[in-house]
Amino acid sequence: MHPTNLSIGVDIGGTKILAALVDEDGKVYGQIHRETPNHDVARTERTLAEMIRELSEDNDQMPVGIGAAGWMDRQGKNVLFSPHLSWRNEPVRDRLMKLVGHEVTLVNDADAAGWAEHRFGAGRGESDMVCLTLGTGIGGAVILGGQIHRGKSGIAGEFGHQVIVPGGHRCACGNRGCWEQYASGNALGREGAELVRSKSPVAFRLREAVGDNPDAVTGADVTRLAANGDPACKDLIEDMGGWLGLGIANLASVLDPGTIVIGGGLGTASKQLVETAEETYRRSLSGRGYRPFAKICQAELGPAAGLIGAADLARFNQQQ
Amino acid sequence: MHPTNLSIGVDIGGTKILAALVDEDGKVYGQIHRETPNHDVARTERTLAEMIRELSEDNDQMPVGIGAAGWMDRQGKNVLFSPHLSWRNEPVRDRLMKLVGHEVTLVNDADAAGWAEHRFGAGRGESDMVCLTLGTGIGGAVILGGQIHRGKSGIAGEFGHQVIVPGGHRCACGNRGCWEQYASGNALGREGAELVRSKSPVAFRLREAVGDNPDAVTGADVTRLAANGDPACKDLIEDMGGWLGLGIANLASVLDPGTIVIGGGLGTASKQLVETAEETYRRSLSGRGYRPFAKICQAELGPAAGLIGAADLARFNQQQ
Repeated sequence: MHPTNLSIGVDIGGTKILAALVDEDGKVYGQIHRETPNHDVARTERTLAEMIRELSEDNDQMPVGIGAAGWMDRQGKNVLFSPHLSWRNEPVRDRLMKLVGHEVTLVNDADAAGWAEHRFGAGRGESDMVCLTLGTGIGGAVILGGQIHRGKSGIAGEFGHQVIVPGGHRCACGNRGCWEQYASGNALGREGAELVRSKSPVAFRLREAVGDNPDAVTGADVTRLAANGDPACKDLIEDMGGWLGLGIANLASVLDPGTIVIGGGLGTASKQLVETAEETYRRSLSGRGYRPFAKICQAELGPAAGLIGAADLARFNQQQ
Repeated sequence: MHPTNLSIGVDIGGTKILAALVDEDGKVYGQIHRETPNHDVARTERTLAEMIRELSEDNDQMPVGIGAAGWMDRQGKNVLFSPHLSWRNEPVRDRLMKLVGHEVTLVNDADAAGWAEHRFGAGRGESDMVCLTLGTGIGGAVILGGQIHRGKSGIAGEFGHQVIVPGGHRCACGNRGCWEQYASGNALGREGAELVRSKSPVAFRLREAVGDNPDAVTGADVTRLAANGDPACKDLIEDMGGWLGLGIANLASVLDPGTIVIGGGLGTASKQLVETAEETYRRSLSGRGYRPFAKICQAELGPAAGLIGAADLARFNQQQ
């Protein structure tokens, strides 16, 4: 029933682990999911092994690609740092290979999602592209000459931490003014909460939606109300689109990509956000008028992008 | 007397055209220079042809590399925009080849300088590096996997125009808050002028040096006084080093290079600037503690870097 030449893709998120079989055209079969056993490394690794066994039906020739938030070294052998998983400079790949009995490719989750969009999604046919995964923060992938650019130590594409407002909002990374403090689901939630906290009359719909409790506001609330036409929430999205576009213009000044794909939960949910970002990018690009604009578009593959990309990279590695 | 396998390198600057013969080890022979006939394209091109004839002694087999400020398309055939030379979307390379009778390689001047540092200077042996040319503005080169990364339309590496202070100082590019408004010779001159204009008593040495005329202050004045120990000018350099380091941390978040080389007139003149920049970079890099720091160092090749790199790229192109 399943086509041949399948590989297994896994995406370890902050709350869920997704896994599926993926064919060489990026089609997904038999997707399963589990809760992420946060900060419990041994349980996480056992869960991974179970999910892989279930999908592969004990065919250990199937290559496995695993995407996770964090920094993998250039060879994908060691995890230098992982925010959700308490992996700290550990030889995770070899340990997982022993545990699951398959060839394992370990990759940053945003790189995996960007690769999927490059191969099968909104960046098809584009050799030089950037993919932003807008979720709670900003994940980034840089694809140059048709390959993921990983950087000297494997940590390229951490755009979310370019400082765009010196002295600005505090970021969990320890700095102030990082881009993801101005353009992400968390940032949108923070701005919405501030409106609620100020008891702003313009935010009456948002206040109602969260029972006047600022701590309950999420980026998703703001996005949903904006999509339903609420003017206050539309303003918040528009402000954020401005920050998003400014940061994209910065990336363009460094990389000059042909296409910029915006994905992730927030990037996929809000067309208004992406449109405003494009306007600001076009108004901010240095040298506008003497150079072409990059194409800016929403991602196409949805929440499975990460596992699709991880599976594809695993197949690619096996063929090398 | 001259070794064989020479190529000709030319660097068209805002005030001077430098040209020389360069061998395959990057050694320079018989350097000559002329004033740049600004904004007179025909005269500039005639001057180039004369200089090339003089150096080649009518050996038209010698490849010629020409570096100039401006944006070349990815193939190096057309100049999209050149600030000093009034070239606007013109097929400059083919016209110059006809005029001088040599194979011509056209390249952005900062790319040429970065390439020279990669091949023969401070970036020897480093496959992934960034080179900043700090002069009146910031020129940039990105070298990845041992090759210049030019971007989709040939305009990558325009770091000077990443916005680091939204709404900040106006830049000639039309935007506000560009990095080069905070970290360049022009920015240093502007800050010095402001101190002089305010009749600041702490700036008495700088005021004396320019006859109390703020319009006469240049970045070079500030750099020289700082090197001689003047506290006010040292403070200006320190402030600028902070901005420089912040922008470098931003580049590292995108590219993750192994080495960052700082050259140009200002970058070469001020060890204090580069040291302060490195401190700020180390304090600002996102994920410090979980990743290696890039090496940050001054360029080694001085003002000939541009022509050396252009000549080397021309030889490289001929061998292809």
